[in-house]
Amino acid sequence: MPPPASRAVPLTLPGGAVERANAPLAAAHADDLDALSARLARRGVDVGAVVGEIAAFEVAVPSWAFGTGGTRFGRFPGAGEPLTVLDKLDDAAAVHALTGAAPRVSLHLPWDAPTGATGGAAGLREHAAARGLGFDAVNSNTFQDQAGQARSYKFGSLAHTDAGVRRQAIDHNLAVIETGAALGSAALTVWLADGTSFPGQASLRGQFARVEAALGEIYAGLPTGWRLFTEHKPYEPAFYATVVQDWGASLMLAQALGPRAACLVDLGHHLPNTNVELVVARLLHAGRLGGFHFNDSAYGDDDLTTGSLRPYRLFLVFHELAQAARDALPGFDPAYMIDQSHNLKDPIEDLLQTVDALQTAYAQALLVDAVALAAAQDANDVVMAERCLQTAFRTDVAPLVAEARRRRGAALDPVGAFRASGYRAAAAQARAGGAYAPPQAL
Amino acid sequence: MPPPASRAVPLTLPGGAVERANAPLAAAHADDLDALSARLARRGVDVGAVVGEIAAFEVAVPSWAFGTGGTRFGRFPGAGEPLTVLDKLDDAAAVHALTGAAPRVSLHLPWDAPTGATGGAAGLREHAAARGLGFDAVNSNTFQDQAGQARSYKFGSLAHTDAGVRRQAIDHNLAVIETGAALGSAALTVWLADGTSFPGQASLRGQFARVEAALGEIYAGLPTGWRLFTEHKPYEPAFYATVVQDWGASLMLAQALGPRAACLVDLGHHLPNTNVELVVARLLHAGRLGGFHFNDSAYGDDDLTTGSLRPYRLFLVFHELAQAARDALPGFDPAYMIDQSHNLKDPIEDLLQTVDALQTAYAQALLVDAVALAAAQDANDVVMAERCLQTAFRTDVAPLVAEARRRRGAALDPVGAFRASGYRAAAAQARAGGAYAPPQAL
Amino acid sequence: MPPPASRAVPLTLPGGAVERANAPLAAAHADDLDALSARLARRGVDVGAVVGEIAAFEVAVPSWAFGTGGTRFGRFPGAGEPLTVLDKLDDAAAVHALTGAAPRVSLHLPWDAPTGATGGAAGLREHAAARGLGFDAVNSNTFQDQAGQARSYKFGSLAHTDAGVRRQAIDHNLAVIETGAALGSAALTVWLADGTSFPGQASLRGQFARVEAALGEIYAGLPTGWRLFTEHKPYEPAFYATVVQDWGASLMLAQALGPRAACLVDLGHHLPNTNVELVVARLLHAGRLGGFHFNDSAYGDDDLTTGSLRPYRLFLVFHELAQAARDALPGFDPAYMIDQSHNLKDPIEDLLQTVDALQTAYAQALLVDAVALAAAQDANDVVMAERCLQTAFRTDVAPLVAEARRRRGAALDPVGAFRASGYRAAAAQARAGGAYAPPQAL
Amino acid sequence: MPPPASRAVPLTLPGGAVERANAPLAAAHADDLDALSARLARRGVDVGAVVGEIAAFEVAVPSWAFGTGGTRFGRFPGAGEPLTVLDKLDDAAAVHALTGAAPRVSLHLPWDAPTGATGGAAGLREHAAARGLGFDAVNSNTFQDQAGQARSYKFGSLAHTDAGVRRQAIDHNLAVIETGAALGSAALTVWLADGTSFPGQASLRGQFARVEAALGEIYAGLPTGWRLFTEHKPYEPAFYATVVQDWGASLMLAQALGPRAACLVDLGHHLPNTNVELVVARLLHAGRLGGFHFNDSAYGDDDLTTGSLRPYRLFLVFHELAQAARDALPGFDPAYMIDQSHNLKDPIEDLLQTVDALQTAYAQALLVDAVALAAAQDANDVVMAERCLQTAFRTDVAPLVAEARRRRGAALDPVGAFRASGYRAAAAQARAGGAYAPPQAL
Repeated sequence: MPPPASRAVPLTLPGGAVERANAPLAAAHADDLDALSARLARRGVDVGAVVGEIAAFEVAVPSWAFGTGGTRFGRFPGAGEPLTVLDKLDDAAAVHALTGAAPRVSLHLPWDAPTGATGGAAGLREHAAARGLGFDAVNSNTFQDQAGQARSYKFGSLAHTDAGVRRQAIDHNLAVIETGAALGSAALTVWLADGTSFPGQASLRGQFARVEAALGEIYAGLPTGWRLFTEHKPYEPAFYATVVQDWGASLMLAQALGPRAACLVDLGHHLPNTNVELVVARLLHAGRLGGFHFNDSAYGDDDLTTGSLRPYRLFLVFHELAQAARDALPGFDPAYMIDQSHNLKDPIEDLLQTVDALQTAYAQALLVDAVALAAAQDANDVVMAERCLQTAFRTDVAPLVAEARRRRGAALDPVGAFRASGYRAAAAQARAGGAYAPPQAL
Repeated sequence: MPPPASRAVPLTLPGGAVERANAPLAAAHADDLDALSARLARRGVDVGAVVGEIAAFEVAVPSWAFGTGGTRFGRFPGAGEPLTVLDKLDDAAAVHALTGAAPRVSLHLPWDAPTGATGGAAGLREHAAARGLGFDAVNSNTFQDQAGQARSYKFGSLAHTDAGVRRQAIDHNLAVIETGAALGSAALTVWLADGTSFPGQASLRGQFARVEAALGEIYAGLPTGWRLFTEHKPYEPAFYATVVQDWGASLMLAQALGPRAACLVDLGHHLPNTNVELVVARLLHAGRLGGFHFNDSAYGDDDLTTGSLRPYRLFLVFHELAQAARDALPGFDPAYMIDQSHNLKDPIEDLLQTVDALQTAYAQALLVDAVALAAAQDANDVVMAERCLQTAFRTDVAPLVAEARRRRGAALDPVGAFRASGYRAAAAQARAGGAYAPPQAL
Repeated sequence: MPPPASRAVPLTLPGGAVERANAPLAAAHADDLDALSARLARRGVDVGAVVGEIAAFEVAVPSWAFGTGGTRFGRFPGAGEPLTVLDKLDDAAAVHALTGAAPRVSLHLPWDAPTGATGGAAGLREHAAARGLGFDAVNSNTFQDQAGQARSYKFGSLAHTDAGVRRQAIDHNLAVIETGAALGSAALTVWLADGTSFPGQASLRGQFARVEAALGEIYAGLPTGWRLFTEHKPYEPAFYATVVQDWGASLMLAQALGPRAACLVDLGHHLPNTNVELVVARLLHAGRLGGFHFNDSAYGDDDLTTGSLRPYRLFLVFHELAQAARDALPGFDPAYMIDQSHNLKDPIEDLLQTVDALQTAYAQALLVDAVALAAAQDANDVVMAERCLQTAFRTDVAPLVAEARRRRGAALDPVGAFRASGYRAAAAQARAGGAYAPPQAL
Repeated sequence: MPPPASRAVPLTLPGGAVERANAPLAAAHADDLDALSARLARRGVDVGAVVGEIAAFEVAVPSWAFGTGGTRFGRFPGAGEPLTVLDKLDDAAAVHALTGAAPRVSLHLPWDAPTGATGGAAGLREHAAARGLGFDAVNSNTFQDQAGQARSYKFGSLAHTDAGVRRQAIDHNLAVIETGAALGSAALTVWLADGTSFPGQASLRGQFARVEAALGEIYAGLPTGWRLFTEHKPYEPAFYATVVQDWGASLMLAQALGPRAACLVDLGHHLPNTNVELVVARLLHAGRLGGFHFNDSAYGDDDLTTGSLRPYRLFLVFHELAQAARDALPGFDPAYMIDQSHNLKDPIEDLLQTVDALQTAYAQALLVDAVALAAAQDANDVVMAERCLQTAFRTDVAPLVAEARRRRGAALDPVGAFRASGYRAAAAQARAGGAYAPPQAL
């Protein structure tokens, strides 16, 4: 269902909003930073370098995150939801202005495809560039039927028994690549919903073989410099056997495709009790860690705010990443993306929290004393090795993260600055009367 | 969103459909029944009595089950979906005609509320009675916002911090009771979606206390002879802390409310690795087993066909029930209801399979040699005690179940008879052009 | 298997060990405390009061924790393991001296029963008192067969079909109470391993009814002022159906027994994905939260160091406790105990880490701005409500915790002080030649 | 700890025990087989061929299964436990005589190593051959410290940071291969307990790299015709991060090692909610399914009787295997082994049940109408595809399985025949006074 035409009322944060919000916080921030710097200096930490590394961290936001999310039991819309992809880029620009760390948008197609109203792909790219934004990985969608679509994905797409359905799904992915190329993207993310809900519904091996072959055709269509990410998920919407059900299956596909295929780790796409940082370590060893879809969860694919439930896990994931960077692991270049469903919180506020949570975890990981850790590990001194991590995690890094944002011209307190800016009220007014089209609806 | 007006084309299974389908199967059925009877006679089983008990088994079907279900990622509609509650009753009548075991419908309000088009509650009740149907427990809905609703349930209903929202939700439940009373129902099922998705979002104790108090007002409004069922669920749509999260919380509520309150066990509403038959046994001990929502699942609240993934578990649940009946446990009177989401299968076929799966599990449970089992248990002869259950479960009871249906004038092979009847094609024609309103949509 | 006779070489931390270890840390500690105090003062926190509350926190250590633990796959002993209960009290005294927060020991009987060598219960009590220690809840053991025992617990104890076995188990519990009374304990903890590993092995309802009745006899034997704690656990050693499998079953037992019965929450005794703080909140609502067995785990009853895997969960549990204290919840008086298995770390170091982790979580919970939180909750401002918790959790409370220890004469850095003290080497020498008897072995 | 010397009293089933037990069951068996044959003939099943295939099924029994198992909480020994590996072979011979399907034993070394008392490896091989037995895969043990061992595995074996420990573990594996070769084995199973229990304890990537390298040395030592199986397990004894934690990690190792390395699937070594048959299908696709350790479980690595909790899952696994055989998948040659812990049941009875459960699942899988299934799958007729599996699973195949045993000269009812034979009482007498050495003990 195509969203209704935009009324084309571009929105931006009011000029000086960040500065106005930062001013009253500046003195306390300086004090906190000084105190923390003194403390960290005692540990031998080069605070300036750490802040620089935090400031260099960037993450992509997904185009589907700017409206209120929902579950199969309902959706409770908020005010000022974006009506078009142009509105979404406006919202993304606000997130970037406040955090200084979210300069790219990951599009889901056809949900947010360029149209005549956007001036095509070129127009969309210009619109983004004018807001300081670019485009990250593009995402194909073969888990829903779109209006006018020739064949149904009810029983699968790339795994379907009908070659015609597979062809349609392959062609869609190739079209998504083409759009992405026009937008300046350099990667395709394939999340396959294919699978079965009942034993016997399909051949487990047959489905996998068909997906492998179909992905081969898509991989062959990658432009130079592009990467293809396969994203695993244990269940939902398939409730018995998903084709790309875990990192092992994802890795098998990446290996079959070629060196430019890699595995995307969505933090919420794991069975209960999975050690996610261990999955990350294994994919790093295999040289196939493509990147992340960040979120958090307690039960299933809950799509909650990153770090909201298991902040220590998030830190441990970043510890693996920081180690890989420190070790200069060959080919280490993960793509960082957010994938959440903002059912209750204001989506922009949720994204601001999320970027902060990522910067926080990264900052904590940078504080790990790698030399002491390695020594304790070599000596099997479990207590001291663990303490290296705990000391870093327990450090209140808020001043470092705020300072990193300040250096990029962003907000010391992004949520506070956003609330003070009046952006949401302006959006509610500018977008009033239009109907947000939730991506889940048919 | 109210469903579109019905074009009022009543549908029924063609006359003689069951008989025509049964005829060619009769001889083989008789042979199979004879062979099985001989085998069971050797075990001392009174086959006639068992068939009689199976034939007496009845289960309610939910009004929300007759359309194609979906997930938050999409819905793939099938042909001939019901447009109105009257259509749903037609479909329910077909299920009952083919199984002889589904004579009652459980309504979800306001989704399937009586309207002017149904001649109000009285008209709806007549429509049902004319098809041999009655009404089981009514279900309230405070997990979605309805058009025209004064206050939003976004942040809860009975647990909401705002007394006005709680009042609205209480009044809705009282209205549902009133409608149910007019329809001949005798129970209210309350599934509360209330809860939180983030730590700190609400007071965990405060929410529970508010729900307890609000349910008290609803309980006070129960007509004579009515029961109130609380239904627990660990998560979804709340993703951090659900108010009625497990059977313990449900039991606390039932205890607080009074003797006519009891706990409903949805087979899919349990944390990973939960021993569901043990939950049933505990609620039986507490005298608070209200009944069931039958389905099956591998991961979360998957709402798959009952018995499709864990048939042995289903048998073990029925073993507890058969034992409770055998022991004449005081107050033992569970309500049996189905609650599934038919995303891929034809909903009517899925329900036919489901009723058969329930009859099968019940038949297996009836075959357990209770005397030998008790003796083995007393002697701690684990191998022989287990064998009592396995022997019953491994028995191919299909002939007994088919015979029970035959005695009630139903189909030996319900799915086969349904397919041969042409009902779905007729429905597709009669309901063409109308738009099914999936209950999940807003 | 009784442990070998002690060579009776009492051990203590060398005089002045704490002071010597604290001295070089004092200046940095003072700086850190000042800086944190300044920061917290800006938030309106009364740092002195908070430190006082932390300093008042106490937790019991279990007698079974001082030797190296193991799994069914093996045990890797460390040096200087205690040979007798007297040695264990020495080790407990060291933990208390270093933390100032562990003045009581929880005994497991008959593992650590008073004997002639201890001068009976009176002698043991004196030995403890001389080290500044008392005794917390006593624990009965009916999950192992002891040498010379008349009947076997292989198929259960309080749930056994044989009344003679039940009698033996009841009598053992009564004897444990008697010993506990002589030692100055005031509570009995009953962890029942009873259950079944195969469907059919026993009547699920029958087992529960027998346990309920048997516990009634034990409850009747409680001295004045005593409490009885039932401790649930989902599985292990029973692998199909445990009698006290979750908090709901534990609550049913407490309700059946009487007002002095309450439920013990072991942090590791929950099914995957359980929200443990929600369980705590429910038991608080029921007025039946007896206390805790602290540990942490990723998979099952892993018995890892408290807070080592999910520090945010530990904080959220303490947040519930701090709220209950703030609300002066009637009868709120939980018993705090540690229950871990130190398989890899030095047991004393592990306990020092654990006490620190508890103090840390408690300190964080005390920093929650309760007024702001309540306001945000009332307004359903999810982001700000969550931020109240996150701000508290992310605060680096190490200086507060260290200061609380300092005030009690304990170590700023307990593990560091322990290592510097030479205690373990002395223990290795003093206890050389003796064989530690792991409690799990038969 | 080496087991005490055998008193060398060879045991066998009394002559004619099987025949005497079969005689009174023969007539009913014949009737049941006839009735089932008639029913299956209607479905087009060639009953004779199916019985032949069942009769050809064989599975290896593990040497560590013949004593009573236990948990870390205790062990409850039964009567007549084997004292030596020779006794274990006697017991294995009894299992084979009663089932006709267990002609090989899988040895765990050094637990059941050939010694002087066995006449070395040659003597052991002869002893086995005299009982109709051979040797299956040999298992190394680097998860326990053995008396006299130079270095400890407390902190790992092949993953250890100390090259000396790795060397010791490699050499042990090479020695196990050597022993296995002398015994006629042709495969080595490596279950690595290596991992960590705390974040930071070791480098996650470093551990994996060390294991990969060390396994390479072991792989290089494989004799011609040998295979190496890596067995994954998510946790226990490591409680945070296990090196070979899932099938993906196991597959990475097999790929790194070479074509004779393959993955062993223990049915109980999976995270909650894992679809195990899907894991089997993926490994089949990768050409790396090495074989199975059969058991069942509800929670963790519970090691219960195969098929005792999820018989439908066991059937679905065998359905994958039967399909692979039908498709003549290249290299398809899985090793079938049992790996259970018989804590409550008589170990021999448990094994008899287990072999029967495996034969039952295999028989059900053979009854799947593969042609109808493929047609339904091609048509996406979910109901009919599922029915193909359910019809096969619900068939009471007991007569087929009994007939297959009868044809091999084994028992119609193995447990009944065993009980009637007096074997256990004879063992209790012959082995009285000796102390069984449970493999878990140190």
